[in-house]
Amino acid sequence: MTTPFAVTFAHVEAAAARIRDAVIRTPTVPAPALSARLGCDLRLKLETLQVTGSFKARGALNKLLALPPEARARGVVAMSAGNHAQGVAYHAGRLGIRAVIVMPEGTPFTKIAATESYGAIVELFGREIDACRAHADAIAARHGMTVIHPYDDPAIIAGQGSVGLEMLADAPEIEVVVVPIGGGGLIAGTALAAKALKPEGTVVGVQSAAYPTLARPSGPIPGGTTLAEGIAVRTPGALTRPIVEALVDEVLVVDDRAVEQAIAVLAETVNVVAEGAGAAGLAAVMAAPGRFAGRTVGVVVCGGNIDNRLLSSVLLRGLITDGRMVGLRVRIEDRPGALAALVGAVARVGGNIVEVAHRRLHLDVPVKSVEVDIEIETRGTAHAEAVIGALEEIGAACQRLDELD
Amino acid sequence: MTTPFAVTFAHVEAAAARIRDAVIRTPTVPAPALSARLGCDLRLKLETLQVTGSFKARGALNKLLALPPEARARGVVAMSAGNHAQGVAYHAGRLGIRAVIVMPEGTPFTKIAATESYGAIVELFGREIDACRAHADAIAARHGMTVIHPYDDPAIIAGQGSVGLEMLADAPEIEVVVVPIGGGGLIAGTALAAKALKPEGTVVGVQSAAYPTLARPSGPIPGGTTLAEGIAVRTPGALTRPIVEALVDEVLVVDDRAVEQAIAVLAETVNVVAEGAGAAGLAAVMAAPGRFAGRTVGVVVCGGNIDNRLLSSVLLRGLITDGRMVGLRVRIEDRPGALAALVGAVARVGGNIVEVAHRRLHLDVPVKSVEVDIEIETRGTAHAEAVIGALEEIGAACQRLDELD
Repeated sequence: MTTPFAVTFAHVEAAAARIRDAVIRTPTVPAPALSARLGCDLRLKLETLQVTGSFKARGALNKLLALPPEARARGVVAMSAGNHAQGVAYHAGRLGIRAVIVMPEGTPFTKIAATESYGAIVELFGREIDACRAHADAIAARHGMTVIHPYDDPAIIAGQGSVGLEMLADAPEIEVVVVPIGGGGLIAGTALAAKALKPEGTVVGVQSAAYPTLARPSGPIPGGTTLAEGIAVRTPGALTRPIVEALVDEVLVVDDRAVEQAIAVLAETVNVVAEGAGAAGLAAVMAAPGRFAGRTVGVVVCGGNIDNRLLSSVLLRGLITDGRMVGLRVRIEDRPGALAALVGAVARVGGNIVEVAHRRLHLDVPVKSVEVDIEIETRGTAHAEAVIGALEEIGAACQRLDELD
Repeated sequence: MTTPFAVTFAHVEAAAARIRDAVIRTPTVPAPALSARLGCDLRLKLETLQVTGSFKARGALNKLLALPPEARARGVVAMSAGNHAQGVAYHAGRLGIRAVIVMPEGTPFTKIAATESYGAIVELFGREIDACRAHADAIAARHGMTVIHPYDDPAIIAGQGSVGLEMLADAPEIEVVVVPIGGGGLIAGTALAAKALKPEGTVVGVQSAAYPTLARPSGPIPGGTTLAEGIAVRTPGALTRPIVEALVDEVLVVDDRAVEQAIAVLAETVNVVAEGAGAAGLAAVMAAPGRFAGRTVGVVVCGGNIDNRLLSSVLLRGLITDGRMVGLRVRIEDRPGALAALVGAVARVGGNIVEVAHRRLHLDVPVKSVEVDIEIETRGTAHAEAVIGALEEIGAACQRLDELD
């Protein structure tokens, strides 16, 4: 079968063979506990375990290996603050190819350091992606270097497609493949593989609600910052778009709240660290489990490069969402023993106080009272209610911190 | 070859075949970035992806499958606050076997909830392990139920040994196997497999410095709480001990600080959530990289059941250790504009302030001054020094929060 696209399944197969020695054949694992909870049979393709922490290392390597010797000798330029930067930097470093990575000013320190650690030169330029891209093009033109596009390049698409090839080879029972979409390189390559290996299977794309370029192609693009920054792309590729339109059965959108919950669930239930874009596929399944019920669903967890500080916040916020941590503002009298009565009441019903802060300067508090903010670990929503009941019983007025205006 | 032990490699092979349909053949993955940093070639056996989040599900299943029908009908009892509880509860639930799990009072809520979610009955009893064990024995005797020991049982040892069998089948290039030791079930089974499949290979055990029962068999056991609670075992098994003494080449110890760093590194570099005991093997390699230099090292990351709140703390503390987060107590004048000058100085050198707290009531501060505690995100140790320099330049006296008495 020939396809009318710039990339074919044969290109994906060739890419997979070409890159296999220098990328990790990441595992596709079942997740029984999470599957039982969602009513489907999950298979997670863990690109979180890939070199540089995301699938981007695959396409980058395939592209670098496809460059003629003279182009390799002159070096490469990439414009990216994220996973593409690390994928290009890592393999260029391994292959002895000079690499300049242009990142917008304000890029988090850790991303700069990770990219530099692979031997690439990082240039910070401008605040806007467009300015940044123009700068990368200028460097490339000046030095005769090759620009490595993050998705709109046949070699990149074919390389990313090795994700789908491996997933269906390792878990042929998969009926539905769920893949996050930013520029579309991963899903285009994966769909080429999936539809070739299992034509009767379904391919579902997932976009951030902030950048629903293919889910709602004629609608507005809200844009802005999103937890799923890896798929925050304003324009899908000229090469990827027709492949997605032809081969992808459906494109869903997920909001940041769903992505955040999916990150927390992956960490807690499957012991996998995923970044926002990496968790977007699971977020789509969690948001509409009925749509996937009873089916064997292969979710590409496409990357794990999340800042430790952000991950830490997501984990703690997850406890609050589940009612396992409750923040209360309690008004008590400003007298000896009042705090002891308060913490005693919490202890009696089995709550575990993890933080206490006094607030004395609020003018809406009577002068002989004090407000105390407490964070309490509880067994869940019902137990949190019991803790509040115990406080009200001793005459302490409670307000949930997450319900304050 | 026959061994003089209660368990042989043939038992491990039989166990692996018996349990294979109901446990996950967890992947053994390379970790190139971490390997480069440590100077060895790591292979991580990710039991964090196992059902119930640890290897304990293997031995539990092998034992349950070995019970005669009448014992299955009467049910089982286990004494555990941790992974053994979940392993037994999960498979007993699947197989329709009644299970009572006895846990000490004060067991964290999440562990109780996880165990109950598999259908087991949880009984909280006493504060001490011994009281708890006696209670479990009493329940078993009263109802004719079978006690499932966490490690000192041939069926348990053989089941855990499937970890080593799979690891060496999937990555036969491994030269050194590193395995955490609590009661010794995992390492006994794994050593039987490793020495049978690769007699020239080395098996290294790792214990918590708080419970070095086999590393320093005649020395004192400090005991107490440890981050690696999964290997906090006071007495190795009567069956496991001779196997470990005969087949394990060396037993290392790791302290909690090393375990904490290994948890943070696994999360950040490999995107794997490990609990303390699960990270102990990597901690041993990180603590003495010279000992493993140039070798292919298979580390069993044996479990991932860490409390989200604890994981969150470990991640944040890791940033402080790396100099990527610095806490400062700064004394400034209590006048309009003083705080603005302070935050301006931090911003000028590129520090990112993530938290500010005022401390007004310290008597050692002059009354017209105020102490401000600030948490600043930095690029690393040198950058943190630059931030402190910038503050001193505007006349603000700085003290590191982690250096306060």
